[in-house]
Amino acid sequence: MSQKLKPAARVTGNRQDVWSIVNEAAAASPKQPVVNMGQGFFGYNPPEFILNAAKGALDRVECNQYSPTKGRPRLKKALADAYSPFWGRKLNPETEIVITTGANEGMLSAFMAFIEEGDEVIVFEPFFDQYISNIEMPGGKIVYVPMHPPEEGGFKTLSAGEWSIDFDVLERAITPRTKMLVLNTPHNPVGKVYSKAELEKIAELCVKNQIIILSDEVYDRLFYVPFTRVATLSPEVEKLTLTVGSAGKNFYATGWRVGWLMGPAELIQYVAAAHTRICYSSVSPLQEACAIGFEQAEAEGFWDQCVHDMKAKMSRFNEIWAELGLAYSEPEGGYFVMVNLSRVTLPADYPFPTHVAERPRDFKLAWFLIQELGVAAIPPSEFYTDANAHIVEDYLRFAVCKPDEVLEDAKERLRGLKKYIQ
Amino acid sequence: MSQKLKPAARVTGNRQDVWSIVNEAAAASPKQPVVNMGQGFFGYNPPEFILNAAKGALDRVECNQYSPTKGRPRLKKALADAYSPFWGRKLNPETEIVITTGANEGMLSAFMAFIEEGDEVIVFEPFFDQYISNIEMPGGKIVYVPMHPPEEGGFKTLSAGEWSIDFDVLERAITPRTKMLVLNTPHNPVGKVYSKAELEKIAELCVKNQIIILSDEVYDRLFYVPFTRVATLSPEVEKLTLTVGSAGKNFYATGWRVGWLMGPAELIQYVAAAHTRICYSSVSPLQEACAIGFEQAEAEGFWDQCVHDMKAKMSRFNEIWAELGLAYSEPEGGYFVMVNLSRVTLPADYPFPTHVAERPRDFKLAWFLIQELGVAAIPPSEFYTDANAHIVEDYLRFAVCKPDEVLEDAKERLRGLKKYIQ
Ligand SMILES: Cc1ncc(COP(=O)(O)O)c(C=O)c1O
Ligand SMILES: Cc1ncc(COP(=O)(O)O)c(C=O)c1O
Repeated sequence: MSQKLKPAARVTGNRQDVWSIVNEAAAASPKQPVVNMGQGFFGYNPPEFILNAAKGALDRVECNQYSPTKGRPRLKKALADAYSPFWGRKLNPETEIVITTGANEGMLSAFMAFIEEGDEVIVFEPFFDQYISNIEMPGGKIVYVPMHPPEEGGFKTLSAGEWSIDFDVLERAITPRTKMLVLNTPHNPVGKVYSKAELEKIAELCVKNQIIILSDEVYDRLFYVPFTRVATLSPEVEKLTLTVGSAGKNFYATGWRVGWLMGPAELIQYVAAAHTRICYSSVSPLQEACAIGFEQAEAEGFWDQCVHDMKAKMSRFNEIWAELGLAYSEPEGGYFVMVNLSRVTLPADYPFPTHVAERPRDFKLAWFLIQELGVAAIPPSEFYTDANAHIVEDYLRFAVCKPDEVLEDAKERLRGLKKYIQ
Repeated sequence: MSQKLKPAARVTGNRQDVWSIVNEAAAASPKQPVVNMGQGFFGYNPPEFILNAAKGALDRVECNQYSPTKGRPRLKKALADAYSPFWGRKLNPETEIVITTGANEGMLSAFMAFIEEGDEVIVFEPFFDQYISNIEMPGGKIVYVPMHPPEEGGFKTLSAGEWSIDFDVLERAITPRTKMLVLNTPHNPVGKVYSKAELEKIAELCVKNQIIILSDEVYDRLFYVPFTRVATLSPEVEKLTLTVGSAGKNFYATGWRVGWLMGPAELIQYVAAAHTRICYSSVSPLQEACAIGFEQAEAEGFWDQCVHDMKAKMSRFNEIWAELGLAYSEPEGGYFVMVNLSRVTLPADYPFPTHVAERPRDFKLAWFLIQELGVAAIPPSEFYTDANAHIVEDYLRFAVCKPDEVLEDAKERLRGLKKYIQ
């Protein structure tokens, strides 16, 4: 290729990412079909009332054409109505909400709205991997603060809430260039729901230093302990908080690409401006369906059902770890479980391909499970910097948002691990 | 707002954009409801066979979940099959096509993939407005080359093909930093379909200087004269051309946000990498519907129907200009018509609001039509730099992709212009 056609640095990462490693391994596994508990997509459909809403929208001319760039008024209103009770005041659908193309593009819009070359963004490890490229795109510098699993995590099943950050490290990470801090609760992959006390400490630092909080709450309808939304802590915190939501996660429809950001009008206007420049507007008929979803979810008992069903899946699946004598972090929210496989001994001479052999032990564990048992999970060291990757090298992340038969199949296969555990 | 919370320069344009000016004017007009021939959305639905495909997709679990980041294999294959005949060779669906969130996010992905700070991109005026912010986001510098209407355009209806660029100006615009050139054919707003001879001249310059051609061909199914795809001129040109498509434009579904880029694997891989970082993946059920759309369109006679129907709308609507004695550019493609209103005299004392009074005459013409006749059209000087805005200050752009009744209603209202024409 001519030198003149060469790509920009931002798209030329040289390390293979975890998704393609796991997918390629799954495709090459002798145990077909592999049970995929890797990526966090649902193994079942959105509820009937929302599917029907989508089909109905497809029959309406205006639902098939461009929506306003900030989102369909009906969806913004439905969200304002659904979230106002949590905020304890009426949210303004016109100025405090913007609809985006999934939470993902919403977060990119937030970074594009506020980050100038050299501005710093604090990100906790493990992180949702898209944060990194999204922050780097506008020239942001990421300052990492690691979460640590509980020390006994290798042999004792404890609450995911036991994963913690060192607040002194956090405080020292703040500089005059710190523009934003990214929070994720309920947390992927840890399953932690930040306690009110933890959020207050983080928020206090952000208020003191006037740091914008980007609170990624895409799993906000899946919590099994009390859940606090950081924006609702105080008016001072609310003033600098952007809350991120995802209809994909809320309605079992990750492929619909409907998300939103909520926050003070002074900030949302710029997120909306960035969003317009990135995607122009978001998918119309599915925005309409999500509006109807939010209008009807409460009456349908859907939110309670979500918690009930996902908790049941968690319990069903996690039985296998008790059976195998492996410890895991009991999720407080979301649909991921982090399992500690320190007690699993990998055969010394096992033929790992180079690109796996070079990575921390969790990549080898993941590869081994795919090849030997036909179960795909995600090595979480991908979501740490190299320096901190060792923290989670004994863990794997399993997504339980799958049909019960799939969970049972996975459990049956995972029994094959017994002979590798002392 | 705290100084520390201030937005990035990229989202703080201070001039009100044409869309909000026109929409606000329409909302405030005494002639309700205003006939909106401004924005290019369709006033009718996608064809039944595609709507049915979308509804069917909504019933399938995998069609509601994340698609592969590069797009659903079925859609990539359908596109490869649909476009291979034009390319005269089999396109590789896995390496030469990437699905994006509308053409818009596809083009942003292309700029993100190749533009580094200070790289130059040649853009013809009038331009599709999103190009500008999309090029500036990765730090690109835009070098403008104006298109000129035919000199007799004020009093004689001529082909839109008569709009032309000065090839010497184009050649002088090229520097060692020129990385990309953006082409749009069929053209919005001009309605021009670049001739093969014109494309050859442009392509020759790009090959000579190794400039990537981003060919925005979203109106590729709406042409009324022979249409040449620049990528198909020669293997040398193909090697540096990215062709942009839009299911929204092809299937009367601008709100579906499904687009794509096609090109050599060496370039497409980076566009795909950028797209993954921007949106992660695009809307799944509607990708599936578009796949089925492409599989069936030919057999349904849909592409011929498109041309036939839009040509009929053009003829129906443009009768009014002959009747009024106003000249327009006879479109060779697309669904916009540029009308020259130099013969319209605006009342000397007409009370234009300041933000309109300050802009070129076409903004005043647009405002006047909305207020006095209740017809909304777009002032095209928005799509020129300030220095060149005068070139189109007598023109307005009308979108004819509306039901026939709407076109008739618009014509009836436009008869009210008579008394302002000498
Ligand atoms: C923490 C977190 N944030 C954001 C997202 C992306 O959400 P969406 O699919 O709405 O873009 C995910 C998806 O896995 C996630 O886990
Ligand atoms: C020339 C041109 N390119 C691209 C687009 C955007 O297409 P899409 O809606 O697929 O993003 C438009 C829409 O008006 C257009 O006119």
